[in-house]
Amino acid sequence: MSFDYSDFGAAAAELLERVRVRSPLIHHITNFVVMNDTANATLALGALPVMAHAKEEVAEMVGAAGALVLNPGTLEPDWVEAMLIAGRRANELGIPIVYDPVGVGATAYRIETAKRFLRELKISVVRGNSGEVGSLAGAGGLVKGVESVEGVADPVAVARSFAGRIGATVAITGKRDILSDGAQVAGVDNGHEMMKLVTGTGCMSTTVVAVFCAVESDRLAAATAALTCYGIAGQEAARVSRGPGSFRAALLDALYALTPKQVEAAAKVARL
Amino acid sequence: MSFDYSDFGAAAAELLERVRVRSPLIHHITNFVVMNDTANATLALGALPVMAHAKEEVAEMVGAAGALVLNPGTLEPDWVEAMLIAGRRANELGIPIVYDPVGVGATAYRIETAKRFLRELKISVVRGNSGEVGSLAGAGGLVKGVESVEGVADPVAVARSFAGRIGATVAITGKRDILSDGAQVAGVDNGHEMMKLVTGTGCMSTTVVAVFCAVESDRLAAATAALTCYGIAGQEAARVSRGPGSFRAALLDALYALTPKQVEAAAKVARL
Amino acid sequence: MSFDYSDFGAAAAELLERVRVRSPLIHHITNFVVMNDTANATLALGALPVMAHAKEEVAEMVGAAGALVLNPGTLEPDWVEAMLIAGRRANELGIPIVYDPVGVGATAYRIETAKRFLRELKISVVRGNSGEVGSLAGAGGLVKGVESVEGVADPVAVARSFAGRIGATVAITGKRDILSDGAQVAGVDNGHEMMKLVTGTGCMSTTVVAVFCAVESDRLAAATAALTCYGIAGQEAARVSRGPGSFRAALLDALYALTPKQVEAAAKVARL
Repeated sequence: MSFDYSDFGAAAAELLERVRVRSPLIHHITNFVVMNDTANATLALGALPVMAHAKEEVAEMVGAAGALVLNPGTLEPDWVEAMLIAGRRANELGIPIVYDPVGVGATAYRIETAKRFLRELKISVVRGNSGEVGSLAGAGGLVKGVESVEGVADPVAVARSFAGRIGATVAITGKRDILSDGAQVAGVDNGHEMMKLVTGTGCMSTTVVAVFCAVESDRLAAATAALTCYGIAGQEAARVSRGPGSFRAALLDALYALTPKQVEAAAKVARL
Repeated sequence: MSFDYSDFGAAAAELLERVRVRSPLIHHITNFVVMNDTANATLALGALPVMAHAKEEVAEMVGAAGALVLNPGTLEPDWVEAMLIAGRRANELGIPIVYDPVGVGATAYRIETAKRFLRELKISVVRGNSGEVGSLAGAGGLVKGVESVEGVADPVAVARSFAGRIGATVAITGKRDILSDGAQVAGVDNGHEMMKLVTGTGCMSTTVVAVFCAVESDRLAAATAALTCYGIAGQEAARVSRGPGSFRAALLDALYALTPKQVEAAAKVARL
Repeated sequence: MSFDYSDFGAAAAELLERVRVRSPLIHHITNFVVMNDTANATLALGALPVMAHAKEEVAEMVGAAGALVLNPGTLEPDWVEAMLIAGRRANELGIPIVYDPVGVGATAYRIETAKRFLRELKISVVRGNSGEVGSLAGAGGLVKGVESVEGVADPVAVARSFAGRIGATVAITGKRDILSDGAQVAGVDNGHEMMKLVTGTGCMSTTVVAVFCAVESDRLAAATAALTCYGIAGQEAARVSRGPGSFRAALLDALYALTPKQVEAAAKVARL
């Protein structure tokens, strides 16, 4: 393990630099609500987004990508099939899959779909809120629509054990983000409460994780750096906004303006 | 009837307070253009949005909701079926349905779909512009795309008689919003002309109506309070914006910042 | 040819005026990512948008439109069929079709679809980036996702010969926009590099071209005026924004505020 999670700012800064230099393509198969925001977040970071969901083309499209986002927030059968086709091809090619189990637990259909994803695909990172990851892990947690209304009691334990069980990095985002690869656990205290008041900020965090996974094969390091950078951008955005509408625009401005130096100075990452 | 429409500000303020306290979940089956905006409007008001349209899950999802929005603005057969499935389940459970007949009158398909909705579902509130409601009510009105290019001649009479006929509250939005439950008629003079220059502001008003219907069973009172609050937010947004792009962000900021006191002071509601 | 491309500012200004007066309806069958932005761009210019994609209604809807936008950015078979149905009807009625070959070259499915469109429809204007038009014309150009990562070597020659071959106006947008109807070639030097950092700015330019085609039958003049106005709005937006998020809002504000006088003064159009 080359990353020191007790002094992680410099590592996160270096990964941000790498994103800007390499400008990876991020293939999204995602929900209708956030497509525009997640595409813009990708561009603001210096990477390239593509949204494509037809079974006719997803296997070919993902072949050009540095990472694949699977976000079944507005799922339906054809889209689920396309996600699986793209996911299998990503697995064959060694392209990381970042999976956002939006609203899992809210309906049986979402739970079944999530189980299929975990069973049929090798996922690199699962990113969800506490209710979603709790539902997915069978560790409690309550989801109302797509919101976590009750989180897991011990997110550190859940993240570590669930990550170990599925062989992926697990990121539970919230006031403190908790991440684990099954062995190590990191906590990120960057971010701002205004993020809860804008739709798609969770989905955007998944996108940011995918961007970083496209340039770093240590998925825990990539995801931790991603959430750190994203959280700092959220803090900056909150300083110049007057509510959720202006915050949404300011968040993209802040992702675009974010410098490695700023990341190094503002990162609040702890090894847990 | 517990609401006094000749001095409605205090009642609207109280309902806004209730929305903030109860934070109801609003299940949307809505069009692609406005999903993001209507989700953000829901959050800005203090409620929770969920967008879900798969026939596999809508009946279950709506069961957790305080209100259901049916907005076939970008309709297609599968979505129409899902709306009917969710709507029937909402009817069984007594969950209010707020229906936005986007662009009805523009094509035969939209007219047929609207007729099915009115025939097969018990709708709580229909919210449309003058051309849409006129087309739906068979009372004149001309729709070009999704815009009302010619309104009904007498909106008060149309709202009242159409509401009586379908057993719902009818809200015709425009410079003056006209609402009726078939007996009483209210007029709301809040709002700003900039709202016509931003896509989805009509759809957002439908969402706001649904949010208020989730906390108040008198649908005329709920819809009137909703359009009052929304209109005041529009006025506030216009004061700090330079055009439709900044207005759109400012509208969400204003919905978020809106206080019951502000509503009480600025409400312009008349009993007609 | 009534337009003088060596002094085009006044002509572009006159067309903008015409858009504001006539307020044409623009029927979009477009991708999920940009629906909201392109609807808002249409409104900001003073025209009316409608998004409708069901096979059940597109032929009827397009009949009321002044132009049809076909943008298969998130294509799937049902949508492609609907685009062809609407396109055939537009051809019958003499309604101009503006086609945006998003990401063509990235997958075989996008290439096949593009070939069908060119074979089965009479297109008025094709608007794409250099990689897309290069791929479509078989003239080189490399597309990564939906981005042009390598343009054509000689855009003037490609635009002219491809336009002549397909009998349409071709617009290759980039730092300098190159447009040709197969005979004349125009270059537009308005615009701002921030536009590359916001998703959908290419799609919005296609929409603006469609708006102008709805009021002017000389497609080269219409498309050139459209890209000039749009580019000037981009320049204005860049002056008041702090990054891609605020730029996106400012671009709509600028399209709304744009005056014919401003266009006449700022137009940078050259006959090539």
